Amino acid sequence: MSLEKNVDFSIQKAEKSKIGSIDFENVKFGSVFTDHMLVCHYKDGAWGQVEIKPYGPMSFEPSMNVFHYGQAIFEGMKAYKDENDKVWLFRPRENWKRFNKSAERLAMPHIDETRFVDGLKALLQLDQDWVRKGEGNSLYIRPFMIGTHEGVVAGPSTEFMFCIILSPARTYYSGKVKVQIAEHYSRAANGGVGSTKCSGNYAGQFYPTKLAQEAGYQQVIWTDDTTHTKLEEAGTMNVFFRIGDTLITAPTSERILDGVTRKSLIAIAESKGIKVEVKSIVVQELLDAHAKGELKEIFGAGTAVTVGQIEGFAYQDKYYALPEVADADAYAIQLKTALQGIQQKRIEDTFDWTETI
Amino acid sequence: MSLEKNVDFSIQKAEKSKIGSIDFENVKFGSVFTDHMLVCHYKDGAWGQVEIKPYGPMSFEPSMNVFHYGQAIFEGMKAYKDENDKVWLFRPRENWKRFNKSAERLAMPHIDETRFVDGLKALLQLDQDWVRKGEGNSLYIRPFMIGTHEGVVAGPSTEFMFCIILSPARTYYSGKVKVQIAEHYSRAANGGVGSTKCSGNYAGQFYPTKLAQEAGYQQVIWTDDTTHTKLEEAGTMNVFFRIGDTLITAPTSERILDGVTRKSLIAIAESKGIKVEVKSIVVQELLDAHAKGELKEIFGAGTAVTVGQIEGFAYQDKYYALPEVADADAYAIQLKTALQGIQQKRIEDTFDWTETI
Repeated sequence: MSLEKNVDFSIQKAEKSKIGSIDFENVKFGSVFTDHMLVCHYKDGAWGQVEIKPYGPMSFEPSMNVFHYGQAIFEGMKAYKDENDKVWLFRPRENWKRFNKSAERLAMPHIDETRFVDGLKALLQLDQDWVRKGEGNSLYIRPFMIGTHEGVVAGPSTEFMFCIILSPARTYYSGKVKVQIAEHYSRAANGGVGSTKCSGNYAGQFYPTKLAQEAGYQQVIWTDDTTHTKLEEAGTMNVFFRIGDTLITAPTSERILDGVTRKSLIAIAESKGIKVEVKSIVVQELLDAHAKGELKEIFGAGTAVTVGQIEGFAYQDKYYALPEVADADAYAIQLKTALQGIQQKRIEDTFDWTETI
Repeated sequence: MSLEKNVDFSIQKAEKSKIGSIDFENVKFGSVFTDHMLVCHYKDGAWGQVEIKPYGPMSFEPSMNVFHYGQAIFEGMKAYKDENDKVWLFRPRENWKRFNKSAERLAMPHIDETRFVDGLKALLQLDQDWVRKGEGNSLYIRPFMIGTHEGVVAGPSTEFMFCIILSPARTYYSGKVKVQIAEHYSRAANGGVGSTKCSGNYAGQFYPTKLAQEAGYQQVIWTDDTTHTKLEEAGTMNVFFRIGDTLITAPTSERILDGVTRKSLIAIAESKGIKVEVKSIVVQELLDAHAKGELKEIFGAGTAVTVGQIEGFAYQDKYYALPEVADADAYAIQLKTALQGIQQKRIEDTFDWTETI
């Protein structure tokens, strides 16, 4: 991954900000975008100028690669504003590195750190009024890349667009969810693209998730596609299990996303003296632990909700409720509070994870 | 699947045809599009008017679903013109049915036969000068659907666009290809989307295919992701093996596309008295048959090339050449000739597969 210097930037400011029309208290996640976006095109083997310009629709050919052959990857990140109006990013270079890993597997070009991280910072400087202070406020950041070559030939695109769009977000407490362990459907193959943030991984999940929802569960716990016994992800998040006082999560693999929230939670847990085991965990272990009263918590980990608590799971048409754990005793709450405290600069960042713009 | 009657059609003709500027003899597959396209939008739970209008770029929001969560499916079909200037389609309702199967698995809405088949025919009537007579000429048809809802929430789109674009094609003889049997990478998971024509299936293949090409092979023979021993597809095509005088192809499954060319070739082979076995075939059977001199042919089957002959395969770093088979004796050539003859109305269509516009 090359770090290109002397990247050409152009900035075209919006004539008028939309910010006055936004109800920040009631904004729906991912539905409102800021005044500007970053756009950069790849052609003839090289990335061009980084353009920061007013957010708005773009013109595309109906034969464009991404509509047919799906070369599309993205990242999810957040920016926070501290009490001194300084804007902070959380481990942005981890997202940049993972973006390039996704790019590699999807036969798309790497993008340099300057265009991704410095480009993002330049964009955030322009739209920093959109990052709101106070608990629960953040600005969701969506870098993405799509294949833009025109023509319906089933092969990798030779032209790409890298883009960053920004959306104000409130941390929502979605409540605890009930999940269903996947016994037939899968999100990832061995030797497939499951560890990447490519668009196809998401499209393939919607139908099984809809079936789970029709059966009364909000999310699916994904299992390995060969045996449907290994517990791998929850919805679009990594998943953690607390058995006794040990926290367990599956190791990253070709089938499992190397989540930034996941690895941050592991580090925080270890720093608090919580025993963490990164190992494959199978359904029978979960059922045994539940039967013995040792299964205390299950939670998902991802950028959008940080930590999402699970109140019970269904397996082979039987529902297993998890015990009530007081917030003060719940790993989910302890880890979420610590992580959000670091992200929002309310707790000292001893990990050196935060970075100002 | 409902067959909607009284579908509203609108036709806006291009002011000037581009057809005079096209070099039909040297057109590159999938790179040139006709004067018109069909567009239909799905919103509030229903498909709207079918618009046939000049082919050209469209305006889309950067937050649109398909760029992030990959809801995108397509079909590939061809139209041919006979000696009496009549335009023919090959089994279009099979493509329509499969399109709806893909839609179901990708949590996208079904589209009615009227909008898909009658819409296509109306579009072809307008652009029928683009279907050229004579052997090797056809018009490639690309129906597709994408999620168009704006906003970056990881869930199924509530708005969609169905579109048909047309591209003049020459049947190309690409020569026989060398293939590599996949030992690590995969295109499909059990319980995944492998049997659909969704965009993500293609994006995931490009990188392993690139690695195979760097090693000197043009395509990958995909195997099951659990054992990497079952031979399932070749490149973006179904795959056939001739051992002795028996033709073998894998049964369709969640991992394998129910190819229209595949099932047409099976029917033609059986009608010619060729013994066809639809069964799972593993690498060891292939190696054993090769060692005994019984492995005579391997070929791929798909709409773009009809039948694509394979001259040899690599497995575990060893290359296995197939014997030279005279064209007159090759199943690949016999079946290709018969299928193309029916499609192009040079041979009587005793199967009732062709349908005029």
